[in-house]
Amino acid sequence: MPHFISLADIPAVQLRAILDDAHAMKAARKDLPKGATDPKPALNGHTLAMIFEKASTRTRFSFEQGMRQLGGSSIVAGADQMQLGRGESVADTAHVLSRFVDAVMIRSNAHATITDFAANADVPVINGLSDHNHPCQIMADLQTLEERGIDLATAKLAWIGDGNNVLASFVNAAPAFGYELRISSPAGFRLDENPKTAGLIDAAIAKGAKIKFDLSPDDAAEGANALITDCWVSMGDTDKAERIAALTPYQIDAARLAKAAPDAIFLHCLPAYREQEMTTEVLEGPQSAVWDEAENRLHAQKAVVKWCLGAG
Amino acid sequence: MPHFISLADIPAVQLRAILDDAHAMKAARKDLPKGATDPKPALNGHTLAMIFEKASTRTRFSFEQGMRQLGGSSIVAGADQMQLGRGESVADTAHVLSRFVDAVMIRSNAHATITDFAANADVPVINGLSDHNHPCQIMADLQTLEERGIDLATAKLAWIGDGNNVLASFVNAAPAFGYELRISSPAGFRLDENPKTAGLIDAAIAKGAKIKFDLSPDDAAEGANALITDCWVSMGDTDKAERIAALTPYQIDAARLAKAAPDAIFLHCLPAYREQEMTTEVLEGPQSAVWDEAENRLHAQKAVVKWCLGAG
Amino acid sequence: MPHFISLADIPAVQLRAILDDAHAMKAARKDLPKGATDPKPALNGHTLAMIFEKASTRTRFSFEQGMRQLGGSSIVAGADQMQLGRGESVADTAHVLSRFVDAVMIRSNAHATITDFAANADVPVINGLSDHNHPCQIMADLQTLEERGIDLATAKLAWIGDGNNVLASFVNAAPAFGYELRISSPAGFRLDENPKTAGLIDAAIAKGAKIKFDLSPDDAAEGANALITDCWVSMGDTDKAERIAALTPYQIDAARLAKAAPDAIFLHCLPAYREQEMTTEVLEGPQSAVWDEAENRLHAQKAVVKWCLGAG
Repeated sequence: MPHFISLADIPAVQLRAILDDAHAMKAARKDLPKGATDPKPALNGHTLAMIFEKASTRTRFSFEQGMRQLGGSSIVAGADQMQLGRGESVADTAHVLSRFVDAVMIRSNAHATITDFAANADVPVINGLSDHNHPCQIMADLQTLEERGIDLATAKLAWIGDGNNVLASFVNAAPAFGYELRISSPAGFRLDENPKTAGLIDAAIAKGAKIKFDLSPDDAAEGANALITDCWVSMGDTDKAERIAALTPYQIDAARLAKAAPDAIFLHCLPAYREQEMTTEVLEGPQSAVWDEAENRLHAQKAVVKWCLGAG
Repeated sequence: MPHFISLADIPAVQLRAILDDAHAMKAARKDLPKGATDPKPALNGHTLAMIFEKASTRTRFSFEQGMRQLGGSSIVAGADQMQLGRGESVADTAHVLSRFVDAVMIRSNAHATITDFAANADVPVINGLSDHNHPCQIMADLQTLEERGIDLATAKLAWIGDGNNVLASFVNAAPAFGYELRISSPAGFRLDENPKTAGLIDAAIAKGAKIKFDLSPDDAAEGANALITDCWVSMGDTDKAERIAALTPYQIDAARLAKAAPDAIFLHCLPAYREQEMTTEVLEGPQSAVWDEAENRLHAQKAVVKWCLGAG
Repeated sequence: MPHFISLADIPAVQLRAILDDAHAMKAARKDLPKGATDPKPALNGHTLAMIFEKASTRTRFSFEQGMRQLGGSSIVAGADQMQLGRGESVADTAHVLSRFVDAVMIRSNAHATITDFAANADVPVINGLSDHNHPCQIMADLQTLEERGIDLATAKLAWIGDGNNVLASFVNAAPAFGYELRISSPAGFRLDENPKTAGLIDAAIAKGAKIKFDLSPDDAAEGANALITDCWVSMGDTDKAERIAALTPYQIDAARLAKAAPDAIFLHCLPAYREQEMTTEVLEGPQSAVWDEAENRLHAQKAVVKWCLGAG
């Protein structure tokens, strides 16, 4: 069963094919209304269940509209509206939903919920964000980089800020795509310091990834093709003051962006908090690709669902 | 970008066209199942996002079913289920949703959320109720009046009760349709006393509206073609006891309805609270048009969405 | 108006026809994607509203997917997202929704909400679980029994555990299908002791039902074709410790299942709580039919909606 849970688990050639499909589908639907089916809808009659344990804007809208464009449909449920929210086991929920839908997307506070669900499901399961990683987001980011003319095989990508679940997926995908990943996070907020993501960098390097870590923010930015960050206080974080204090030197401002390559782009998975992880000037400036990046969630995820269902 | 936010901003000829379209679409789908597409669906493949900050029955069901009848679809989200609910800016939400859908409907506690969204969106924005006004409701009310044979150019419409956001839209539309609007609200609950709606009456009169205000309830009712009211305690109001005390003399009962024209109708946007703003006898009596009025939300709003998307 | 609120109110021949239709529809869609319309979709363009006062997994997914398979659609709303949640009357909500949709499914904490809604609706109303009964569940259970080769006319069905709303529907359907219903519930948790369901057994027996009650768990199980139970602590129950103490002797374990007929099946409407009402061994064992039972909610309810709308 082809689940889409971690980019570290999917062969490079398949990730490449998913990305190619995302580009092709985006190109094929210029000028169509946003809910119109694709010229060649690949998932007619298929239904994706979406289970949310956390708030969502992009994930919700992009998957729901994506399934529609593919000729399919979706059923959206908050975990708190389900028996899952009052004690029904993840395994039993997986058994039951497998009878009603063709695939399941889960946004969970606990990665184990997603893997447990997948272990008990008869249909593919897609990770729509967990505390471990965020594979769909990185597929959208890679699509955005490529459509801005950046060659992933030679790109230098700088992650500056919190060493979180989004960064984890950049690490996981590094061996497959070949980019140099430069990581600059303050002590206390480094990927390897979090038990959930410790060891991912070593594992990626062992598979050939080019990863530099413990860089200063400016060293990471120097000549990079993209500066990437995320909000400092994510859903569920309770150490807000400590985070802001530690991460303030890692803010991406115009001066730091100027150290990057002349045509470098700024990426952020959103929601963004102005004057925290980046200045308003950078977020709204000409090098920001964040709205395209958000849109590409749609295209990339359509390719992901197709891959899961053997329609890629 | 043709947003539908205030009836005061839309030319009379266009409001007239929207209303005509609503009548025509309603007539064209007699005996069809309620989720069937129109004989000539005007918005094939278009998707409306609906964002709710407040509870909704009519708005939710009418827009969702309306989009389906038009050949389109909708995506419904509570603001609390979105990143908007945890601090993502309205502007950024507007940027992002513009990539995923063709139009956005917002029900908000703060009118500024809707105007801010519209200022940052690349797609039309529809006001599905704000603390300032309720333009969709008034289009449904005007459709109901016309289908009961009441000529808006000569009609006498009596608003008796709280001078609220629904009344504001009757004021805003008065110059366009020509009706005489008679307003009877107690001191403390008059449209001009609320900073959010102060000046609307003067502005409408300056554009030619026939508006009489500070009438007694019985003077307003005398010979009117319609008596209209709304609940006394709206979503968010905290001064319940004070409201009931002040508004009790403004209740619409059988005696007051008898002062109106013989074929006068009773309108109420619902939810209604029996023995408060009107007696049960009036709400459920033969002159009540409130269920047709509720249904017309569907038809009128379909015309509104079509107008926004240039398909009217 | 053919409402589907209690199995006691529907003629045996019609219940039989609904069940036959459920079998036929299930057979007709082998190998189709789960959101694909049926080969001969019976409810093109029809919309079902679903109103939930309580959490739901199976009911939500099965009805939503079922309407899609029938060529129709659904609108799902939590009661707390509607004006119903802030005081709009059930009757008025029924009047209004009758204008927007073709049928309404309600899951309610109060059976009277469903009957009140039906009394005021112009469209069919379906009971999606109330504190009185759960008719949709029992149609799915009967379908499951039949597809396992059990003849309902001669079957011995043993309900062992809490005498709740699900059991009530087994009682209500007993005269129509002819099975022998054996009930084993501890004192304090018997169907007749609950004012909401008192008298149902007598009423069913008066119509010819074969019902044995006040049996010991082992006597109920002896030679039965199916052992059936439900969780001990349902949504809304506050007497958890007392329930567990009283019901523990009624647990269905391997020894008790061994007393049943050799090919007996285990049924449970889910969610199940392992090592409470049944052991893990029974729930996950070869005689358990609970996942098929859950899936059959879909097929049975499609037949129910069709019957309500005259398309059966």
